[in-house]
Amino acid sequence: MSYPNLAVAIEPVRDPCLVEAVVDAGGRVVPLAEARVLVWLAGPDTFPSLPDAVEWVALSYAGIEAYLASGVLDDRRLWTNASGFYAAGCAEHALALLLAGLRQIPASVLLGWNDAVIPPAVRTLRGATVTIIGAGGIGRELAPRLTACGARVIAVNHSGRNLDGADLTLRSTETDRALGEADHVVLAAPSTPSTHHLLNDRTLGLLKPHSWVVNVARGPLIDQAALGRALRAGTIAGAALDVTDPEPPADDDPLWSLPNLIVTPHIANPAPGLTREMAPWLAENLRRFAAGEDLVARVDPARGY
Amino acid sequence: MSYPNLAVAIEPVRDPCLVEAVVDAGGRVVPLAEARVLVWLAGPDTFPSLPDAVEWVALSYAGIEAYLASGVLDDRRLWTNASGFYAAGCAEHALALLLAGLRQIPASVLLGWNDAVIPPAVRTLRGATVTIIGAGGIGRELAPRLTACGARVIAVNHSGRNLDGADLTLRSTETDRALGEADHVVLAAPSTPSTHHLLNDRTLGLLKPHSWVVNVARGPLIDQAALGRALRAGTIAGAALDVTDPEPPADDDPLWSLPNLIVTPHIANPAPGLTREMAPWLAENLRRFAAGEDLVARVDPARGY
Repeated sequence: MSYPNLAVAIEPVRDPCLVEAVVDAGGRVVPLAEARVLVWLAGPDTFPSLPDAVEWVALSYAGIEAYLASGVLDDRRLWTNASGFYAAGCAEHALALLLAGLRQIPASVLLGWNDAVIPPAVRTLRGATVTIIGAGGIGRELAPRLTACGARVIAVNHSGRNLDGADLTLRSTETDRALGEADHVVLAAPSTPSTHHLLNDRTLGLLKPHSWVVNVARGPLIDQAALGRALRAGTIAGAALDVTDPEPPADDDPLWSLPNLIVTPHIANPAPGLTREMAPWLAENLRRFAAGEDLVARVDPARGY
Repeated sequence: MSYPNLAVAIEPVRDPCLVEAVVDAGGRVVPLAEARVLVWLAGPDTFPSLPDAVEWVALSYAGIEAYLASGVLDDRRLWTNASGFYAAGCAEHALALLLAGLRQIPASVLLGWNDAVIPPAVRTLRGATVTIIGAGGIGRELAPRLTACGARVIAVNHSGRNLDGADLTLRSTETDRALGEADHVVLAAPSTPSTHHLLNDRTLGLLKPHSWVVNVARGPLIDQAALGRALRAGTIAGAALDVTDPEPPADDDPLWSLPNLIVTPHIANPAPGLTREMAPWLAENLRRFAAGEDLVARVDPARGY
């Protein structure tokens, strides 16, 4: 099917994966001045002034708090983000971080063949309860990976609506209970005022001395100073962060010196492959746009994601 | 049910988990001189001379090549090993090692937040083909964990009998084909003359520049000098070994200096938890022994495992 009116600008660079997605969806790639749709592949700082003819802006980020803060989003057109597009990558990375922690892989890298320290610290996912906080797209991908490893999954989300693959789904108002029942915690929530420092001195205190904390969502979900205190005191076993606050942490951040803290450089969905992940979702949304259907990943500025 | 004649010695130490398993199975724990069954929790060097009344020896190791070499095994009684008892732990550790490699976790630990080196090296299991060589008990546990992560699984075993959860099962005579189709390889075979240096210069050459090699079985399955050459030349991406040859590697082994090699100290099933893993299997075998049924994990000295 071809839609001559499906004129799409891809800025600031015409990424070839997304050009292909537009063409596959029956559209044309055009300069911004001629576009009904803008696909924007960068942050808000360089965001262009929008011609009136632009009816829909497709942002390539899953977390859009910087766009909200910048005031770029208006109510004169549709906005979508990439919420859910990168969920599978985040879920795989969360599993990798959790297993690496439980299986003492970073400690083995740092200490070599240490029979005194490493074997007693090894833990297993089999029979462990893993709580996923903010269980939407990432949670749906992560739950079956965890249950395949023999873990029990508690999902926590805003609505409490049952997450496929979870053994139990709780509302976000029941987060304390979900943390109290957890052996390990994975953070997968958007960064909003209500998730800010969701893990802090008090809530970290609900976890166990063998607990690992994994964050593949956004740095501000954790009070990092509180995390450092818990790790130094040994009230939890470790933490594995693909996101930090700020990002990257300063070179002299005391987090770097904690042996039971793993930091990966925001690589759940590494930049070189990002548009390949986004392409099928963009094609689907272009089809929906042309057909006048609701778009996937509509941004609700009031909700903040 | 109680079996007064089910007299079991647990040596050289009366491990409490296994004592409980014997009692649960209706048996009694006795000194070796009074035993019909010996549960032996150590290597062959200190193996006792066996009273004629011992009808069955239950070894606690999965790999028994040292027992075979020592000549301890005789044909006057039944022998079992722990083949399959620790499969779930090995499978979880194999997944942890493979994901750690693909997700550049060790590199992140060593290099810190390095945006130039790490993101381009990150790979995903989604859509990748993973070949499991020696797919028995570990393979049965590993295949569903891999497919939950979106991987395609090729199993290779002696018989070519279909492995549950694998997309394709090949005979060990087709190993070259299985390596040629693989993105990544997990070794899970016993150590026998026919698996010695199964990965060598030639077979490593069948892999790809993005391939990771994982070994959770036995060190001698890999020609480590050949592995070092492949890693230095970049003909494969990396290797993650929970077992080595010798074990541990010497302090000055050049393997330690390879940045794309992960070594964990034989912790797929860490010693502190081993008898807890073995207990339900011992109980089941004691029930079978009392009932005159075939035992699980019978050793075939001719086959070597």
